Amino acid sequence: MNRQITLAARPSGFPTEGDFRLVEAPVPVPGEGEILVRNLYLSLDPYMRGRMNDTKSYAEPVAIGGVMTGEAVGRVIESKDARFREGDIAAGMTGWQEYGVLAAGEARKVDAGVAPVSTALGVLGMPGLTAYFGLLEIGRPKAGETVVVSGGAGAVGAVAGQIAKIKGCRVVGIAGSDAKVDYMTGELGFDAAFNYKTAASYYHKLAELCPGGIDVYFDNVGGAITDAVFRLINDRARVVICGQISQYNLKRPEMGPRFLWTLIVHQARVEGFLVFQFKERYEEGLRDLTRWVREGKIRYRESVAEGIENAPRAFIGMLRGENTGKQLVKVG
Amino acid sequence: MNRQITLAARPSGFPTEGDFRLVEAPVPVPGEGEILVRNLYLSLDPYMRGRMNDTKSYAEPVAIGGVMTGEAVGRVIESKDARFREGDIAAGMTGWQEYGVLAAGEARKVDAGVAPVSTALGVLGMPGLTAYFGLLEIGRPKAGETVVVSGGAGAVGAVAGQIAKIKGCRVVGIAGSDAKVDYMTGELGFDAAFNYKTAASYYHKLAELCPGGIDVYFDNVGGAITDAVFRLINDRARVVICGQISQYNLKRPEMGPRFLWTLIVHQARVEGFLVFQFKERYEEGLRDLTRWVREGKIRYRESVAEGIENAPRAFIGMLRGENTGKQLVKVG
Repeated sequence: MNRQITLAARPSGFPTEGDFRLVEAPVPVPGEGEILVRNLYLSLDPYMRGRMNDTKSYAEPVAIGGVMTGEAVGRVIESKDARFREGDIAAGMTGWQEYGVLAAGEARKVDAGVAPVSTALGVLGMPGLTAYFGLLEIGRPKAGETVVVSGGAGAVGAVAGQIAKIKGCRVVGIAGSDAKVDYMTGELGFDAAFNYKTAASYYHKLAELCPGGIDVYFDNVGGAITDAVFRLINDRARVVICGQISQYNLKRPEMGPRFLWTLIVHQARVEGFLVFQFKERYEEGLRDLTRWVREGKIRYRESVAEGIENAPRAFIGMLRGENTGKQLVKVG
Repeated sequence: MNRQITLAARPSGFPTEGDFRLVEAPVPVPGEGEILVRNLYLSLDPYMRGRMNDTKSYAEPVAIGGVMTGEAVGRVIESKDARFREGDIAAGMTGWQEYGVLAAGEARKVDAGVAPVSTALGVLGMPGLTAYFGLLEIGRPKAGETVVVSGGAGAVGAVAGQIAKIKGCRVVGIAGSDAKVDYMTGELGFDAAFNYKTAASYYHKLAELCPGGIDVYFDNVGGAITDAVFRLINDRARVVICGQISQYNLKRPEMGPRFLWTLIVHQARVEGFLVFQFKERYEEGLRDLTRWVREGKIRYRESVAEGIENAPRAFIGMLRGENTGKQLVKVG
């Protein structure tokens, strides 16, 4: 049988485990041009919270009773396409389940010799590419500039900050625990970092750590942290809007201080993006990321939950910031 | 004697005439490399409201007792520089006074044969260039796209909307009176327009007039009008932040709905600018604007107050939206 996690109810505010259901279904059968994958790891990502709402965004919501959406990496156990053989490792959007069928053209073949296969969901997958294109193409950092990353210990933020270091920037990270601060300034090599949960004032802390102002802000969080950053941007600053996790579980939309005037004064740019904009260039991004990981210039951590039955709890934990680095579920 | 308007007090909220003072001073004497100008027209612009506050922005505030800052156009009555002769028409930052001395290198020679000299402060001056570079370089409109302009009957907005028409866009204007709506859809050739003061819902009115969504927004106003626009932006929309006149006279900063998530979903860009960024290209902008005015593709209106003593009242009226097109003060 194929164990799956489906959406049982649309959450109001923070999701609870009761919003999910563990069900069993027959193992699916691949048709021509398809492959059957036995998943090894599921990816848990903040964007999935949006899919639980009944609102059209850049993608359709998950239906009530539908399998939760998401990417996974696994072993091909049956192939009806010449591009894959049994035993190959494949990544694709199977959703939260133990077995999935993928169109071969929409699956990515993963070379298990390059790095652990789990990295295909993290530093060498969508989160790594999101950091790569978001920072380099939207943020366009220049050597010597100050780059601030919110969610700096997360799957995307940790990579964005390290790429900024590679490009010669001063990097300041923001996260929600002292352990994450140590991780950012130690293992990841950020120049400075702070714990927003214990900072008396985001603004004063940022002003202290960014004495020359902020040139690039890579935002995964939004809310009051982002408000403080806008007060410290330099002329011609670039604000990369990658995620807004502080806003995803609010029961009502939040109000905040208006800041458009600041953009005029500083001739600054704020730009949102989705990694899919850059899909023609994924190969280039993966080539650079793979090289940087091999050279030790990009380090990564994974938080791994065991068993598909624990996916909902791990997902909720990730929304609360309990993970460091990429949150995965091991289902092999 | 040289009559001047000085800043008597820093306004709290909306300025009053008591915040200004009419004083007399000796006519200044030009030094080497300078010219003495007898002003014909003073320019009144929303940005001057910011200069009345004691806060550092992209320019220094006007000191209490200092002459109000601003551009003017006038006749050279004494020249100590080979680049100007007596009788030439010159534009420059003399401030609100009848006579001013300018460094010849910072004055612009105006060809009175091309258009009325007052246009050097409007359609063929800073407001026209602001519209030109803001729309074309920041907004980057493509033929067939929908462009919304707030403050669409003002000195900058009217030009921005007409340039968007020249570029083949569908243009929707927003302003604060039915007469301005008629002006935009009649004389200026906008495709649609509405009076925000009588619209029951900015959002529903915009949705009705922009059935295909909004690709470019040229914002002179900010506040609730801009909030409504963000709800209707298309994928890859560009929001040009030129001015935020709805916010300049607030006693306390206003809160508004957060919209950064919308920028992700639509992969949209918001960018503030100052016309000075483009100063190396002013000649190119003026060449195009002059041609379009001559060809009748850009029309303009001026609201002219008579006498420097009426400058404060005209300025306050402009902040209230009483002008159509460029607000000037005739001092000749």
